[in-house]
Amino acid sequence: MVEILGPKLETPVVERLTIIGCGLIGSSLLRVARRKNLASVLVAADAAKDVRDRVTELGLADEIHADLAAAARGADLVVLCVPVGANSMVAQEISAALSPGAIVSDVGSVKGAVVSAIAPHLPSGVHLIPAHPVAGTEQSGPDAGFATLFLNRWCILTPPAEVDAIALKKLSDFWSAAGSNVEIMSSQHHDLVLAITSHVPHLIAYNIVGTAADLEEVTQSEVIKFSAGGFRDFTRIAASDPTMWRDVFLNNKEAVLEILGRFTEDLSALQRMIRWGDGEGLFSLFTRTRNIRRSIIESGQEIAAPDFGRHKADPQ
Amino acid sequence: MVEILGPKLETPVVERLTIIGCGLIGSSLLRVARRKNLASVLVAADAAKDVRDRVTELGLADEIHADLAAAARGADLVVLCVPVGANSMVAQEISAALSPGAIVSDVGSVKGAVVSAIAPHLPSGVHLIPAHPVAGTEQSGPDAGFATLFLNRWCILTPPAEVDAIALKKLSDFWSAAGSNVEIMSSQHHDLVLAITSHVPHLIAYNIVGTAADLEEVTQSEVIKFSAGGFRDFTRIAASDPTMWRDVFLNNKEAVLEILGRFTEDLSALQRMIRWGDGEGLFSLFTRTRNIRRSIIESGQEIAAPDFGRHKADPQ
Repeated sequence: MVEILGPKLETPVVERLTIIGCGLIGSSLLRVARRKNLASVLVAADAAKDVRDRVTELGLADEIHADLAAAARGADLVVLCVPVGANSMVAQEISAALSPGAIVSDVGSVKGAVVSAIAPHLPSGVHLIPAHPVAGTEQSGPDAGFATLFLNRWCILTPPAEVDAIALKKLSDFWSAAGSNVEIMSSQHHDLVLAITSHVPHLIAYNIVGTAADLEEVTQSEVIKFSAGGFRDFTRIAASDPTMWRDVFLNNKEAVLEILGRFTEDLSALQRMIRWGDGEGLFSLFTRTRNIRRSIIESGQEIAAPDFGRHKADPQ
Repeated sequence: MVEILGPKLETPVVERLTIIGCGLIGSSLLRVARRKNLASVLVAADAAKDVRDRVTELGLADEIHADLAAAARGADLVVLCVPVGANSMVAQEISAALSPGAIVSDVGSVKGAVVSAIAPHLPSGVHLIPAHPVAGTEQSGPDAGFATLFLNRWCILTPPAEVDAIALKKLSDFWSAAGSNVEIMSSQHHDLVLAITSHVPHLIAYNIVGTAADLEEVTQSEVIKFSAGGFRDFTRIAASDPTMWRDVFLNNKEAVLEILGRFTEDLSALQRMIRWGDGEGLFSLFTRTRNIRRSIIESGQEIAAPDFGRHKADPQ
């Protein structure tokens, strides 16, 4: 694993790194920061006592604070790893403690709303550069994190037009050293891309699991028993953190509704093909979708093993 | 792996087993039949020469035929492992070769349509007992099969009301010995249960992958790059065999349209929650769906490892 992540940096990217929120993403950042020497001092903060206790037990940080301002004081880089809806409150709490020249970033799955939630609270001289590492699992909390979470995943930065070039370079170096490929785009484009690659997939996964739970003719126990037919894949996504996802949908309303409209339109066409027995139309769509998966595997964003290793293939 | 499947049977369940169609399911059945001694003689048939050649190279059967009737002649159990739409044609081809007392079964994901496709072609004295092993991966062909595919998965039998009890017992024993849990229900109920646990999930997975491919504002390469946000899970399902799935939707029209109607209704409600900013409603659904996954894991139909082993968790 050490070899996969490569050697430690000789010079840390930042002096003092503060991670606010030590869940899956925050604790993974702490782990990779330690492993790769991304910062000289690792400071962590979390509002929940049980989370702080676990961070201490796991030895993930050099300092752990309940007081967010105390954690942010003197930091070169503060990364907010909290649900999108909590960003504004956190920004208010740490505002007075931030030094000029400090970089404030985040890891939220929505970017347009981040600027309006955080920017008004920051003192001048502090650089706000929103970021989104496109990585994660369906699990939550400090125990769920791991140092290679960001490895070969994309991290999208959505800097404002008037961004400080040196600060942008520093944040980009930080994510590269954590193992990510860095991409820069506008927050508006980010929110549309993520609506199709992440937000709407989560929404329809949540939705079908809910539909299944509400059927009268099929029992819950039957749904569970026969879930290996495809349903269980949706339950994985639909097991993701409810607070995080509520905030995503509330904060990326326009793009989600736009993509959802497309999805529903396409689904109606598909429904019509089934009703009218249009086998050719179905076959043509089902063939087309295979190619996209091939490209995803080739790009290294997925592995080809069938069933994600649930079964081990067993020659003869 | 040998230990997982348990010891070979001392007495085979059937004398002569014929598998028609040697794709993922058929070749897996041949493998487990050999491993567990489910039959004294393993006979395979496939219409495609390249498939027959691979079956020979892999040594999966004692006999391999291009002529389906020749393969079925004298068999105690014939299992049709072909797309649902091919069942009728196969039944016609093997009809004259079947001996009285032989059992004819299948592995299709749709059961109501099976009886009407196969039954009219069978001579009297032949027992038709449709079956559906709820197991599979997104891969196809004789190389994709493995002996443990059916292990701890459910196999649903949908015998007709007037079924021969001894034949039913034999088919049930066959699937139990292959590692499956056997459940018996009506074909009508089967088709509704599978519509929610398998058919509609596949349909919406195919649909969203299609929607993504058609967007103008988001490039294909962006969809691929950022697929780790959830989208890639859908592409796995949407990479399943197009012919098989076309036939499923054409042959389970009523149940699929019924469940799809529910799904769309629920999705509209969810869409409305997003539009009106109903965070409580979203949170409540997202919490409820977590519990179903927990039950699926507890029931052994899924493993709990995050991300299906795509990443290895890495303490510290």
